[in-house]
Amino acid sequence: MATQKFFAKKGQITPQMEFVARKEGLEREALRQEVACGAMIIPANKNHLAQKLNPMAIGRLATVKVNANLGTSPTTSGAQDELDKLHLAERLGADTVMDLSTGGDVSKIREAMLAASHVPLGTVPIYEALIRVHAIEELTGDLLLKVIEEQARQGVDYMTIHAGVMLEHLPLVAQRITGIVSRGGGILAKWMVHHKKQNPLYERFDDVLEIARTYDVTLSLGDGLRPGCLADASDQAQFAELKTLGELTLKCWDRDVQVMIEGPGHVPMDQLKMNVEKQKSWCHGAPFYTLGPLVTDIAPGYDHISSAIGAAIVGWHGADLLCYVTSKEHLGLPEIEDVRQGIVAYKIAAHAADVARGRKGARDRDDALSHARAEFDWERQFALSLDPERARAMHDETLPQEVFKRAEFCSMCGPKFCPMHNFKSSLLKELEGVV
Amino acid sequence: MATQKFFAKKGQITPQMEFVARKEGLEREALRQEVACGAMIIPANKNHLAQKLNPMAIGRLATVKVNANLGTSPTTSGAQDELDKLHLAERLGADTVMDLSTGGDVSKIREAMLAASHVPLGTVPIYEALIRVHAIEELTGDLLLKVIEEQARQGVDYMTIHAGVMLEHLPLVAQRITGIVSRGGGILAKWMVHHKKQNPLYERFDDVLEIARTYDVTLSLGDGLRPGCLADASDQAQFAELKTLGELTLKCWDRDVQVMIEGPGHVPMDQLKMNVEKQKSWCHGAPFYTLGPLVTDIAPGYDHISSAIGAAIVGWHGADLLCYVTSKEHLGLPEIEDVRQGIVAYKIAAHAADVARGRKGARDRDDALSHARAEFDWERQFALSLDPERARAMHDETLPQEVFKRAEFCSMCGPKFCPMHNFKSSLLKELEGVV
Repeated sequence: MATQKFFAKKGQITPQMEFVARKEGLEREALRQEVACGAMIIPANKNHLAQKLNPMAIGRLATVKVNANLGTSPTTSGAQDELDKLHLAERLGADTVMDLSTGGDVSKIREAMLAASHVPLGTVPIYEALIRVHAIEELTGDLLLKVIEEQARQGVDYMTIHAGVMLEHLPLVAQRITGIVSRGGGILAKWMVHHKKQNPLYERFDDVLEIARTYDVTLSLGDGLRPGCLADASDQAQFAELKTLGELTLKCWDRDVQVMIEGPGHVPMDQLKMNVEKQKSWCHGAPFYTLGPLVTDIAPGYDHISSAIGAAIVGWHGADLLCYVTSKEHLGLPEIEDVRQGIVAYKIAAHAADVARGRKGARDRDDALSHARAEFDWERQFALSLDPERARAMHDETLPQEVFKRAEFCSMCGPKFCPMHNFKSSLLKELEGVV
Repeated sequence: MATQKFFAKKGQITPQMEFVARKEGLEREALRQEVACGAMIIPANKNHLAQKLNPMAIGRLATVKVNANLGTSPTTSGAQDELDKLHLAERLGADTVMDLSTGGDVSKIREAMLAASHVPLGTVPIYEALIRVHAIEELTGDLLLKVIEEQARQGVDYMTIHAGVMLEHLPLVAQRITGIVSRGGGILAKWMVHHKKQNPLYERFDDVLEIARTYDVTLSLGDGLRPGCLADASDQAQFAELKTLGELTLKCWDRDVQVMIEGPGHVPMDQLKMNVEKQKSWCHGAPFYTLGPLVTDIAPGYDHISSAIGAAIVGWHGADLLCYVTSKEHLGLPEIEDVRQGIVAYKIAAHAADVARGRKGARDRDDALSHARAEFDWERQFALSLDPERARAMHDETLPQEVFKRAEFCSMCGPKFCPMHNFKSSLLKELEGVV
């Protein structure tokens, strides 16, 4: 029953805390205190730790992290495709992944992904529960708990639990344009309306906590009522649920269960800071895990970009884990190229947030790459890039020959126009005495 | 000698002002006042107006605009490629384009682009001047003015003139990592160091103004010392030049010449608002035309994204025209697909900025698309998208059959998991009397 939070509260530094402190460049004791108070989490299921998992941390003292959603859908993709995406995600620096599979043998797919994954893996157990019944109405609290228990035993590091969508919140979505856009939220809302009963995940939350503390599963409290468009952002429904999530956070902490809070969605830029501040305040400093947010609704096909803008801004203002949105969002299941674009877009957002927060050393890699740029050291530029393979390929598209790897120009300007070729600071010696 | 600004100051509303007021949904008189005081520009060379140009406006009361840089390089691309890019740019909603050609017969290419372009076309005349000589040192003020005059006569609507890079600013770049990264800035710096003389464009600025007012060419005062990496952002060199640009702005206005100010470049997120405020204050409210800015240096191959983040934020805080950066920046000349991705990334940034500024009606298209989404009206979703062709292609990749154009799901969730399919607000009637 001993979670990272349990040990931290006892004053004990686990090997995972030590590992993470080294990775983040933090004092072990400072990190322990953060885990103890809940401002930092180390999602690490005991049964995944026994496999390949490398622990990592999410929270205000850590660097901003990136999550990639993977998984099959009932209409598309197979187990091997998802494993390929997982390997690519790790290579590109995704800090966590979620297996959201809803098609094929989801338990087997999850087992394979857990065995392959060095990063924490999250799930949304209600998806598997729904697969096991014919219709939403047949779901029961017992079935939900059974699935949560099985997935916990398998080694899932964190689970999205939509325990904050309550029966009394539902009338608040009546005036929305896009109603409910969270899959888990939609399922539970339909169930509640049909049975005219409270959300079973809310009712049985103590049982959920019992499972979570047994395996040290981190709970990711889902935002079943997140806004699905700008018009619905920051409305009563969203904030009513957030208030409940704040209460559930305290219940988690009471049982030494690690927890983070999921956030929107679709939010105009001028409301982003307020949204982060409200989450941090109402949820007592628990880490914030946002999906984007998208800052406009009119860019289907390019929502990795519209959402990376929102992600960068919320990361700067305090969001801790940024869940990517791919270019395929709203249109279909992402293919491997969409996953690639999505992850890099979010690595940009997270890194830009670290720089803007003024985190110590955050700009070092930027500076190193800029030095390489000024020195026309193309190989080093590629190596320091977020996606070296792609950077090299783009350069080589027009100038593939080896000699151009030492050239003082690229095909954008050519030598006669390249400013860094034309003007070097060493020339300034000639100006001594003149200016 | 009568420019839009001249007429506006006289109290006269030109047909171009009328056209633009209708497009922007502004009162004609309010718009005239903005043009008169210089806070709004209508880049419209008389000789381009005589062709296909549709006037448009850049400034604080207008929607945020997007520019696409096109043009050949000495190593890559031909005239037809650039015309294809121009047509695509217009179709995707680029508000202005620049022809930065430095390869091939640049005068002929420009003529063809001007003839084809419905949007204002800008250039950087020093590029053509350099093409006409063997080496930078051979450039003269007379040659620069000759080229400016020829391009103005051809119909170029706005020109980047790097008149603000001064001899005495150059020592300020000595400590930079990437020194000078503006092509025009690099050329002029090398010239100044060699001749130990002041920038000829600064010295002959009155002659430049004479040409500009003859054809109503808008001047885009170039930032030859813009930072080329995060470490160099907001430094003395950048702001020394900005101060000079503020002085030159007043000289433009004195001669009724329309003017906007170019800005960085590479800037961390937390310095963006300050950069806009400084430009607006030091340059007396003249429109601000930024390149990005990129919010991190480590994303070559994805700089349309790293820069769209910066562009959205500066647009929100008051930048008026956002010059796109493509994914190929720093690596090579963009191909047509890079142009496409770049323009859409910047349409997202500009639109998100309009929404965040709270501009009247800015969110209408978002709301309309969101309604279409909630109604599973796929055709309407595509039609309202920034890139309908691409949105449709992505949807159809997995579900091409016509029947799926009315389906209540896509391949991401499938019908059983689609939240908008599962839960409709109409269901809430069943809850009457329960909550």
